[in-house]
Amino acid sequence: MSKKICPLDIRKGMTIADLIREYEKGAFGSGTMAEAVETYAGMLTENCTVFLGLAGALVPSGLGKIVADLIRDDMVHVVVTTGANATHDLIEAFGGSHYKGVVEDDSQLREKGIDRIYDAFIADESFRLFEKKIGEILPTVKGDISVSDLMREIGRHLASPYSFVRQAFLKEVPVFVPAFTDSILGLHTFLYAQDHHLIVDHVKDIGRMVELTSSGSKAGAIFLGGGVPKNFIFQAMLLSPRTFEYALQITTDRPEYGGLSGATLEEAISWGKVSKDSRLCTCYCDATIGFPLIVAGVRDALQK
Amino acid sequence: MSKKICPLDIRKGMTIADLIREYEKGAFGSGTMAEAVETYAGMLTENCTVFLGLAGALVPSGLGKIVADLIRDDMVHVVVTTGANATHDLIEAFGGSHYKGVVEDDSQLREKGIDRIYDAFIADESFRLFEKKIGEILPTVKGDISVSDLMREIGRHLASPYSFVRQAFLKEVPVFVPAFTDSILGLHTFLYAQDHHLIVDHVKDIGRMVELTSSGSKAGAIFLGGGVPKNFIFQAMLLSPRTFEYALQITTDRPEYGGLSGATLEEAISWGKVSKDSRLCTCYCDATIGFPLIVAGVRDALQK
Amino acid sequence: MSKKICPLDIRKGMTIADLIREYEKGAFGSGTMAEAVETYAGMLTENCTVFLGLAGALVPSGLGKIVADLIRDDMVHVVVTTGANATHDLIEAFGGSHYKGVVEDDSQLREKGIDRIYDAFIADESFRLFEKKIGEILPTVKGDISVSDLMREIGRHLASPYSFVRQAFLKEVPVFVPAFTDSILGLHTFLYAQDHHLIVDHVKDIGRMVELTSSGSKAGAIFLGGGVPKNFIFQAMLLSPRTFEYALQITTDRPEYGGLSGATLEEAISWGKVSKDSRLCTCYCDATIGFPLIVAGVRDALQK
Amino acid sequence: MSKKICPLDIRKGMTIADLIREYEKGAFGSGTMAEAVETYAGMLTENCTVFLGLAGALVPSGLGKIVADLIRDDMVHVVVTTGANATHDLIEAFGGSHYKGVVEDDSQLREKGIDRIYDAFIADESFRLFEKKIGEILPTVKGDISVSDLMREIGRHLASPYSFVRQAFLKEVPVFVPAFTDSILGLHTFLYAQDHHLIVDHVKDIGRMVELTSSGSKAGAIFLGGGVPKNFIFQAMLLSPRTFEYALQITTDRPEYGGLSGATLEEAISWGKVSKDSRLCTCYCDATIGFPLIVAGVRDALQK
Repeated sequence: MSKKICPLDIRKGMTIADLIREYEKGAFGSGTMAEAVETYAGMLTENCTVFLGLAGALVPSGLGKIVADLIRDDMVHVVVTTGANATHDLIEAFGGSHYKGVVEDDSQLREKGIDRIYDAFIADESFRLFEKKIGEILPTVKGDISVSDLMREIGRHLASPYSFVRQAFLKEVPVFVPAFTDSILGLHTFLYAQDHHLIVDHVKDIGRMVELTSSGSKAGAIFLGGGVPKNFIFQAMLLSPRTFEYALQITTDRPEYGGLSGATLEEAISWGKVSKDSRLCTCYCDATIGFPLIVAGVRDALQK
Repeated sequence: MSKKICPLDIRKGMTIADLIREYEKGAFGSGTMAEAVETYAGMLTENCTVFLGLAGALVPSGLGKIVADLIRDDMVHVVVTTGANATHDLIEAFGGSHYKGVVEDDSQLREKGIDRIYDAFIADESFRLFEKKIGEILPTVKGDISVSDLMREIGRHLASPYSFVRQAFLKEVPVFVPAFTDSILGLHTFLYAQDHHLIVDHVKDIGRMVELTSSGSKAGAIFLGGGVPKNFIFQAMLLSPRTFEYALQITTDRPEYGGLSGATLEEAISWGKVSKDSRLCTCYCDATIGFPLIVAGVRDALQK
Repeated sequence: MSKKICPLDIRKGMTIADLIREYEKGAFGSGTMAEAVETYAGMLTENCTVFLGLAGALVPSGLGKIVADLIRDDMVHVVVTTGANATHDLIEAFGGSHYKGVVEDDSQLREKGIDRIYDAFIADESFRLFEKKIGEILPTVKGDISVSDLMREIGRHLASPYSFVRQAFLKEVPVFVPAFTDSILGLHTFLYAQDHHLIVDHVKDIGRMVELTSSGSKAGAIFLGGGVPKNFIFQAMLLSPRTFEYALQITTDRPEYGGLSGATLEEAISWGKVSKDSRLCTCYCDATIGFPLIVAGVRDALQK
Repeated sequence: MSKKICPLDIRKGMTIADLIREYEKGAFGSGTMAEAVETYAGMLTENCTVFLGLAGALVPSGLGKIVADLIRDDMVHVVVTTGANATHDLIEAFGGSHYKGVVEDDSQLREKGIDRIYDAFIADESFRLFEKKIGEILPTVKGDISVSDLMREIGRHLASPYSFVRQAFLKEVPVFVPAFTDSILGLHTFLYAQDHHLIVDHVKDIGRMVELTSSGSKAGAIFLGGGVPKNFIFQAMLLSPRTFEYALQITTDRPEYGGLSGATLEEAISWGKVSKDSRLCTCYCDATIGFPLIVAGVRDALQK
């Protein structure tokens, strides 16, 4: 009972900074939203190495440029992602597109050669474009290479400023894809490797992650959804003498079913991934709604 | 596949209007957020009678003034609420307070005389204040009265401009509380009625609601959560030759469990509560995050 | 860390009692399921007055007879329900039917005169049958009557052994419908009362509920979903010097959004609705899956 | 509106087969539960190759033996799992244990050397035992090996009949772990590989999966949760001329947030992973509740 809840005042002409100030007065999700902004801002103020976990297929919804810009502006320093986000980032960087529309009959979509991700759609030709373009890049990569090195080499060949894989290359931010084989990008790498000398070494990246969590400045983690990216970021701290000093997750999952995606950040204290003195914040919100809002709030707060 | 998804651009110094424009580029929840703003703005542009359903206990989180201001500015014309929202609105109007804090041990809270609503807290003394103040108002009400008339009479005695019950009185906006007896306000009315002549007629309000859905301008419905308020608003259309032309719901429930709170708005077409030509929008979001954002977006769009 | 988790053993020919014993070995939802059986069995072993809260529209899914049989067998002593459950119970008792099928186009359903509740369907003619039959019963009720008395009088005129309203009449189990006006039953009562002398007194039922929570044997509460039934049952304890000694809820909602439906039972300790010594159990499960299983488990455990 | 909903009849002494028959009468989750049994039974009756996806950390809750027994009885033919399930399966096979209890203060757990997975607990010493035992097995594996081959080699050294990794070895059922490096098992393999010649080839397994989906008998998929296992199974069909003829998922996630875990199985039609003629069933239920029930139902139905 530390703080009086004041009625939120919503009026025309508000800025994001105004809205966050109003959320700050409230309880339930609104109060948490304000805390999320403070948590992320705190990471940056304390010069944390910021690890960003990207679950699901967030890029098709339009979220990729936000990540690219955070990398560009030194607000994210390590990315751990599903293969889906990497694949769709490349598709857009190669000139492919996603569309949105009404959830339609899937049999008709199949006939039209359109693939659906909830209310986002992508034509088969975008995947053919992807196949062609990645087929031009892979021959430039040789020998035994870690996934994060492969992502860097792919980033080198991109032009789009909206691509987080490109920005990560430019800023020397590592992009980890722990479930690399579980993606269209992984499939095509596999097909290419059938008759070319290319060995993708997954294990190497563990060492690189542990190095990142063990040395340098303090560590902060941001999770959009859970899944492998969350676990891989948290797990790297198990081999480190330190803990994350900050952790922020935006999730719609819940703890009672026992999966890591829904696990509270407090649970991570028992594992030594964060400590009881870490600043922890969980927003229960669709990341495509909450993350843009939080990023806008942090950019305002820090004038970045 | 009607519209290309463009990458959201999030930068410092954004206004709410900017953010909504960015959401509009995206899919999943972000795209829906932009549609929600359009849907509510559409209701007002077409001069709909706007019915607002308030489930749960949203007022303790700080949401009450938003509703009060919407009533003041002719953006909401009928309110249907749980008894909880009415009770907590009055508690604040009477000078009581809600606090927020960390979710604590409930046994200790019990000993301290503090009641918890997730991360919102209220002291027993606020309820005693409520008891005293409502005990002063009830004697001014006489005889056989509908719930909405009782709410108006209570509103007459309030001073706080933050109270939606007060604003509803000032603007002659009816406040329906279909589960009136299911609230602290209902309990105290019951206790008072034990030895005073006060009959609260629930059935009368059905007639008033049906009148409101059957005549005058087009009808639009906004649901924060589901529950009795959603059902009561929708049900009133069953006795009307019309349907709601607009419906917007912000919910975190889901259809598969069969309850009305999670039911899609499309389901309501089968009942004739909305029609296939109605504009329908469902945001899956915590209302304390989503509703302030949508209201800010609508106020910007309409310069209200 | 009180108890070792043992691997569940699932084989052919199992009984429900076997399955509950297997659940008992496990964690997450499975362990909770076994606790739910113990919790309900505990209520009955300690001769609690069992209050059952029925949210949503569970009867259309086929759950009504389970409630009827629990009343018949002295396993439920007070029912608090939405108007929807009461209405659909009567529809079936009057000879109407619900159907199940694939979620179809709602516009087509509208044209066919079929109303949808997720994957349950009901024809308009069932509502017309309801209107006719309830129109024959209401004239037998006279004057000023509480909702629970009205439900008893309606139950008197039914024949179906599957109807929980009928069984409640036979066993003198009160059926409370706090949001009575928020239902088709409420609508028709309203229409009838337009030109007949029938006053439905809502407030009276508060007194009756408080009496039930304040006297007699210990009290136990079972909530299928949340909503008004959960709040009405819990609220009645606020005017009682006692608390519920047992509480079991089966819900799919969650605490973080602040509504009572998702609130933990622990939160109710702060309000004095249950005590820290009460036995509390929350199952996160679709009630149409979980409740039949729990009831079967309890019947086995107690040989009822 | 194809089928009348009949009231479920729940009585003492029921078998699982009885319960499924009762579920079959109902709508919402209960009806779906009966369909789930039919769907899985259908896969086996048609001699499908059954692919089982295991998300999260289900083994700590006690679910591992169910999987082991399904493998033993030719009811599961391919397993795709998170590293967490593999790790915890091995921990138990090595003699370690999981415990259940009340969700406690995580700082205290940390001090006591206990790690928490919701209401399941595991002592640090179980992880030390794991480290020791896996350190004895890894030297028996040589050279360049795929993850599924590594899992087979590990299975060769186990004794516990409750271990699904062991049963998979015995029955020559491949166990794929696409995010292998994202697990304690992966960590220790990495540490071992630092000074030993062991190369874990991830890409090889894609070829093996595609072979499995492309040849032999019809294919059926069962997903407990979503995540990488669901995507990896579905993705393998992208390179195959066929589709899954059956798919059953038990999930608590939802489609609107755009992640694959919550995606409907219908969405997979647009991708060609299943076809419009495939039998699809989604149960919205905690897998630790639903899967034991479904397996028991299938075993009864097929007398296996």
